[in-house]
Amino acid sequence: MTSQQRTHEVLSDIIDAVNAQLDKHGVTYDEYRAGLDWLIRLGHAGEWPLFADVFFEHTVEAVNATGPGSTIEGPYYVAGAPWLERPYVLPQRDDEAGDVLILSGTVLSAGGDPVPGAVLDLWHADADCLYSNVHDGPPAFNLRGRMTADGDGRFEVRTIVPPSYHLPRGGPVEELLNAAGWHDWRPGHLHFMVSAEGYESLTTQLYFEGDRYLDSDIASAVKPELILSLRKHDDPAELSERGLSRPFYSTSHEFRLTPAG
Amino acid sequence: MTSQQRTHEVLSDIIDAVNAQLDKHGVTYDEYRAGLDWLIRLGHAGEWPLFADVFFEHTVEAVNATGPGSTIEGPYYVAGAPWLERPYVLPQRDDEAGDVLILSGTVLSAGGDPVPGAVLDLWHADADCLYSNVHDGPPAFNLRGRMTADGDGRFEVRTIVPPSYHLPRGGPVEELLNAAGWHDWRPGHLHFMVSAEGYESLTTQLYFEGDRYLDSDIASAVKPELILSLRKHDDPAELSERGLSRPFYSTSHEFRLTPAG
Repeated sequence: MTSQQRTHEVLSDIIDAVNAQLDKHGVTYDEYRAGLDWLIRLGHAGEWPLFADVFFEHTVEAVNATGPGSTIEGPYYVAGAPWLERPYVLPQRDDEAGDVLILSGTVLSAGGDPVPGAVLDLWHADADCLYSNVHDGPPAFNLRGRMTADGDGRFEVRTIVPPSYHLPRGGPVEELLNAAGWHDWRPGHLHFMVSAEGYESLTTQLYFEGDRYLDSDIASAVKPELILSLRKHDDPAELSERGLSRPFYSTSHEFRLTPAG
Repeated sequence: MTSQQRTHEVLSDIIDAVNAQLDKHGVTYDEYRAGLDWLIRLGHAGEWPLFADVFFEHTVEAVNATGPGSTIEGPYYVAGAPWLERPYVLPQRDDEAGDVLILSGTVLSAGGDPVPGAVLDLWHADADCLYSNVHDGPPAFNLRGRMTADGDGRFEVRTIVPPSYHLPRGGPVEELLNAAGWHDWRPGHLHFMVSAEGYESLTTQLYFEGDRYLDSDIASAVKPELILSLRKHDDPAELSERGLSRPFYSTSHEFRLTPAG
């Protein structure tokens, strides 16, 4: 199939599918014009990536997944995050709000062999649901960093436990959610992009047991294998050893990479 | 049904319908991101109304039509066109390109009674497919004007025969048409909005026999009852009587208004 035939087929079907719904629901001219006005404002507000990634990326991700353990990238990845030095601590403010999280893990091949030196690019929102380099507030590259797994494919990084996350408020996406009576929440999550030579890059997110939005993620991006359980640590000796003055949480995850090609 | 329930139902179905097509066609990440980039550029270019009215308005028009003889408004109506004086001649340049057209007609009720004093708001593109007050080139309100039907619901107006019309070129809509291998043509047309107290406002377009795009209008807005046949007039006496130095074409149409409410 040529690229033009492909575009023709996909676009024809999408346009026909939307028209079928306009027809089925007897969409009025007032509704049509309100929708058109909303689409224009969505662009002016710079929220097309947000809207598309919340409502459509999960389908694209599902049909393109090369193995289990992946999910959507979302709109707020920023290339060029700082390379971290061991012991890995994600860049954060001295008084970064949230419980301390120590995440350890391994990068493995699909067959279970370690992938030494795999690169992990980690980013997530702060406790106010803000992403650095995207939203006003956090310093540049706050809660964003790149690190490498060791010779056994292992890594450990300290950050904060991301609380339940709501989408940015005050813009057209929020307006649409309100108009439809939908909530604007996602379970708290860490974003990862994991790469290594000879493997497909893996984009995914990690979630945490107990989050009230695990079953109703507005972005439809939760998968059971991505939900981790947190273990609380409050032994003073262990805190002292870690140089921490308050309890922390730990969990671990195995990332599985599929061979390239 | 509340407004929120309505929004929920329509939006859910549209989003699901689009996702079903992304899934069916196995849309790739490259295609998804190219589509998202295109949607953003569509807004920056100000072409959302063009895109929507070409691909979706015909459905909204069909489900909301209160009678026969209507079709889409399209993106280029401008309120406040000049009121014309009899004999009606649509504002145009001295050397306006195109064959002279004398359009006569009647505004009738659904039952066939004349609607005296009905208001006709007429607008159309020039021979270069440009709309005044929208595209650079034509003077303000060129080929736009408002007039009233007489006591018998009759009117006659002189303008030019609109040749086959192509959509604006060089923007994202044209880019999409090219990518899909679709043409960018509509049959030449006159836009009308006809209104009178006690009747639903009628928005429609008139087309002309022989136009090569009558069967393949990219905006899907042609209806058989809106296709008129042109009669050529080249009798020197008649031209002289009309004050014209070249042949002209004539045709006529009956607009039917449905009662309000």
